[in-house]
Amino acid sequence: MNDSTSGESVISRVVRLMSAFDRSVPTMTLSGLARRSGLPLTTTHRLVQELARHGLIEKVSNDKLRVGMRMWELGARGSTALGLQEVALPFMEDVQATVRQHTTLAVLDRGSVLYVERLSAPESPLDAAHIAQRMPVHAASSGLVLLAFSDGAYQEEILAQPLEAVTPDTVTDPAIIRRHLAEIRARGHVAIPGIGHMDWVGIAVPVFGASGRIAASLNAIVPRHEANVPAIIPSLLTAAHGISRSLGADNRLPGSRRL
Amino acid sequence: MNDSTSGESVISRVVRLMSAFDRSVPTMTLSGLARRSGLPLTTTHRLVQELARHGLIEKVSNDKLRVGMRMWELGARGSTALGLQEVALPFMEDVQATVRQHTTLAVLDRGSVLYVERLSAPESPLDAAHIAQRMPVHAASSGLVLLAFSDGAYQEEILAQPLEAVTPDTVTDPAIIRRHLAEIRARGHVAIPGIGHMDWVGIAVPVFGASGRIAASLNAIVPRHEANVPAIIPSLLTAAHGISRSLGADNRLPGSRRL
Repeated sequence: MNDSTSGESVISRVVRLMSAFDRSVPTMTLSGLARRSGLPLTTTHRLVQELARHGLIEKVSNDKLRVGMRMWELGARGSTALGLQEVALPFMEDVQATVRQHTTLAVLDRGSVLYVERLSAPESPLDAAHIAQRMPVHAASSGLVLLAFSDGAYQEEILAQPLEAVTPDTVTDPAIIRRHLAEIRARGHVAIPGIGHMDWVGIAVPVFGASGRIAASLNAIVPRHEANVPAIIPSLLTAAHGISRSLGADNRLPGSRRL
Repeated sequence: MNDSTSGESVISRVVRLMSAFDRSVPTMTLSGLARRSGLPLTTTHRLVQELARHGLIEKVSNDKLRVGMRMWELGARGSTALGLQEVALPFMEDVQATVRQHTTLAVLDRGSVLYVERLSAPESPLDAAHIAQRMPVHAASSGLVLLAFSDGAYQEEILAQPLEAVTPDTVTDPAIIRRHLAEIRARGHVAIPGIGHMDWVGIAVPVFGASGRIAASLNAIVPRHEANVPAIIPSLLTAAHGISRSLGADNRLPGSRRL
């Protein structure tokens, strides 16, 4: 699979090129792309030509390049993200109508939190947790709730990673995080302020799938000093139950019936 | 870039593999993937191993494979699709609340219509026009409105393709389609029943971008014999103006002012 003297495969270099594009830098020139991806200009040129032939990269005006619609299509078609988005969106609208703050849906993927859906509150100034963005697991309430309901081996794998202090309030001590995880399992929700962004608190609850396994976390992101956390949790829990039910989870309470 | 005796590049074969997954077949075994993609089993095995290492393909239970979250992430980050979705979603919710039918947003890409967003009407039985699905340009009202506002050279390129009769009602005569395009430009909307699905009519209006160029089409898909087309068009036009304005198009009428 290698076709270069560097020994790096075509697939690995294509991933490097595509990773160079993001929300803050959606277009760039060929030389900019080479620089951001760390690949030689000739290699970048050759790969971009073929990626463009397949529509995976598009040329826009002023010699700028961007991610092609075909790349978006191949990633979206048949993906778990799209299935989750479709199921969750109506329930997220209900939360947004009630809470009027950024409402997001996140999963764990490859050792970090990945946001798969978001409804933005136009009046909220927080520019973070956008769709397809990532956060470290320990620096997001969504990450902590996802980790709390994951199996123990996976928890230890995550806690064995270097735990960066994203803000002064980020908890980086595995022992304290383990205690948080036990509390989250007992309470069924989490809201630790400032761990990802100093002035904000993420409020997160679990969403379960058909197997009863954790499938996602549903979150609201609220200004830290105005956050009415006790009022937001019931809204999130209600919507998360709806999403879990739609995903096929059996989340009826044993004693609950219509009399 | 070729690494096989067949002369087909790695990128081209990866596109073939990823294209094998779709909404109706989101997971498959390695041999199923080889069969659907038309690649030898050994090649498929080797490529899947590396794609899985990068998270572009994931292994689920029962030896099944599916599109990885990382593939979705790379396609979504920085893509035009995501930008369009974010801008259009609130306006599409307004249409959906009024019209209560499938509401979709489509673009032209690589010679066909690509649906980039959709709000589903739970009560509608039509299982089509899903996110990341495609339709032939001439067999969808969305395609016709997108084509009507594209430049003449592009129109002729599309009309020079083989025009398949998707249903008995699909118009396949380029001369008649050209007449339709002129009418759509004059009227600003289109609703030709049965061209993509016999029992349905797509109602489509144009969305313009900052340059004043066509950016997308906004559509409702309605049962053919119940469709109150004259009532739906104003809702679509209103929302399309909002999306165009949010995309930076100058779509104020010259005489319009607050007295």
